[in-house]
Amino acid sequence: MSREQQAREEELVERVLASFDGTPDPRLKEIMRSLVTHLHGFLRDVRPTEQEWKRGIDFLTAVGHLTDDRRQEFILLSDTLGASMQTIAINNEAYADATEATVFGPFFVENSPHVELGGDIAGGANGEPCWVEGAVRDTAGQPVAGARIEVWEADQDGFYDVQYDDDRTAARGHLFSGADGGFRFWAITPTPYPIPHDGPVGAMLAATGRSPMRASHLHFLVSAEGLRTLVTHIFVEGDELLDSDSVFGVKDSLVKTFEKQAPGTPPPDGRDLNDRPWSRVHFDIVLAPAAAQA
Amino acid sequence: MSREQQAREEELVERVLASFDGTPDPRLKEIMRSLVTHLHGFLRDVRPTEQEWKRGIDFLTAVGHLTDDRRQEFILLSDTLGASMQTIAINNEAYADATEATVFGPFFVENSPHVELGGDIAGGANGEPCWVEGAVRDTAGQPVAGARIEVWEADQDGFYDVQYDDDRTAARGHLFSGADGGFRFWAITPTPYPIPHDGPVGAMLAATGRSPMRASHLHFLVSAEGLRTLVTHIFVEGDELLDSDSVFGVKDSLVKTFEKQAPGTPPPDGRDLNDRPWSRVHFDIVLAPAAAQA
Repeated sequence: MSREQQAREEELVERVLASFDGTPDPRLKEIMRSLVTHLHGFLRDVRPTEQEWKRGIDFLTAVGHLTDDRRQEFILLSDTLGASMQTIAINNEAYADATEATVFGPFFVENSPHVELGGDIAGGANGEPCWVEGAVRDTAGQPVAGARIEVWEADQDGFYDVQYDDDRTAARGHLFSGADGGFRFWAITPTPYPIPHDGPVGAMLAATGRSPMRASHLHFLVSAEGLRTLVTHIFVEGDELLDSDSVFGVKDSLVKTFEKQAPGTPPPDGRDLNDRPWSRVHFDIVLAPAAAQA
Repeated sequence: MSREQQAREEELVERVLASFDGTPDPRLKEIMRSLVTHLHGFLRDVRPTEQEWKRGIDFLTAVGHLTDDRRQEFILLSDTLGASMQTIAINNEAYADATEATVFGPFFVENSPHVELGGDIAGGANGEPCWVEGAVRDTAGQPVAGARIEVWEADQDGFYDVQYDDDRTAARGHLFSGADGGFRFWAITPTPYPIPHDGPVGAMLAATGRSPMRASHLHFLVSAEGLRTLVTHIFVEGDELLDSDSVFGVKDSLVKTFEKQAPGTPPPDGRDLNDRPWSRVHFDIVLAPAAAQA
């Protein structure tokens, strides 16, 4: 590149940066300046043809047009580029002693069914029964009683309830930890599933030889008075997809042993499982102080 | 930031980069790697809260939802962040002797009316008559006969014809250069106008203290067999907005003297202007060789 060309491109970046000089909110000004710097850095690195630039515009347009109340293709794009996980990593810097966070995902629903301790959140979803137990503590090791524990997951066919057209509620629910911080409930053993990949993000994954599959997981959202709300998953030890999760959500500390139980093995609560196999997992949750809340 | 935190964030960037290792198309792989590097660079610089990240997703969602066949809010976003002009700068590196290019904008329409040399493209649009003349040449200085010259502009009220709801065609047309490369036509004197600013991009400009106004200009799209197609504007010398054009489209070489003519001054073609004031401008166009076409 000629020195004149370099000067022309740099001068344009300076002009665009200067256009934000009058931004009243200093935080917004900082964000816009960084955005302009990295956006122009990207353009000057890859040096797109005008046709490539137009394909980028068309891609974003398609992402925008697919997005509605039930489908958030921009979040999928952020997830598959690792931006969602990077944001979570940045915001969890201060909570090193607490349970690690991971992506929220698009399938949480407010007002899930309440179950008692030991109840079943499966709600008829297809899948192998799974006994989940553990305790909620704070970073000083004290039990947290009455923590609200929201859990949700895909069924064995790879779909969350909201992905069906029949308004069902299944494989989601909430419960509260007991006086000793303990909790226990029935769910289904997590199985792998693809993120929605029939849109432009799916086309991007296909064009780059990437799989849309997510490692098997069970979602948790845990909140308690005076403590930082935790959004996380637990993953299944031994799952082949742990190293290629399509949204980069896996953290070693969140991989748990789901112990396979042969048919006929009596479950902890004596429930009759009709000779089906089942599994059990232990997950202790440590919540950070609320003072650390971003 | 702790060394552990830095390592965690960098390790995530490496994992995301590695996910594109299997991309079959090397150009796509290069683009995705640069995108990931700059996207994560941006996130790690500004360290968004999860709420700020969500606002970014919501902003892009709003941009996507406003975009349709008549309104391309992503192009406006690219324009107002200088990304469109940077792409043009990058692609015009090789054509230093040719007339400079600038943004295409969203208001070009195919199948504009044809006018003869000396004809009027105003089509009844509100505005002061403006006589435009010049010649098309190649970089060797040879006249280019039969070049197709498309011109379009906003009317004096700040609107292009397609922004009205009545299907009018006005202030646009095409003509062909003569045997000597010369061209001449009537248009209207360009006046400033705002880019559409009732959407999320307008909200971004307002929040950052930026004006949506574009410097006055007349659009050109010039094409000829064997030569590189030119997309450009000419701007009006003395316009107060030359230094604050909302899409960074102004280049010094494209600023032209529009000579004001007092009422009664006879125009070059003897047209009866009913004692109205008018203006005239000279614009010579140099087209690069087609071999240079991106």
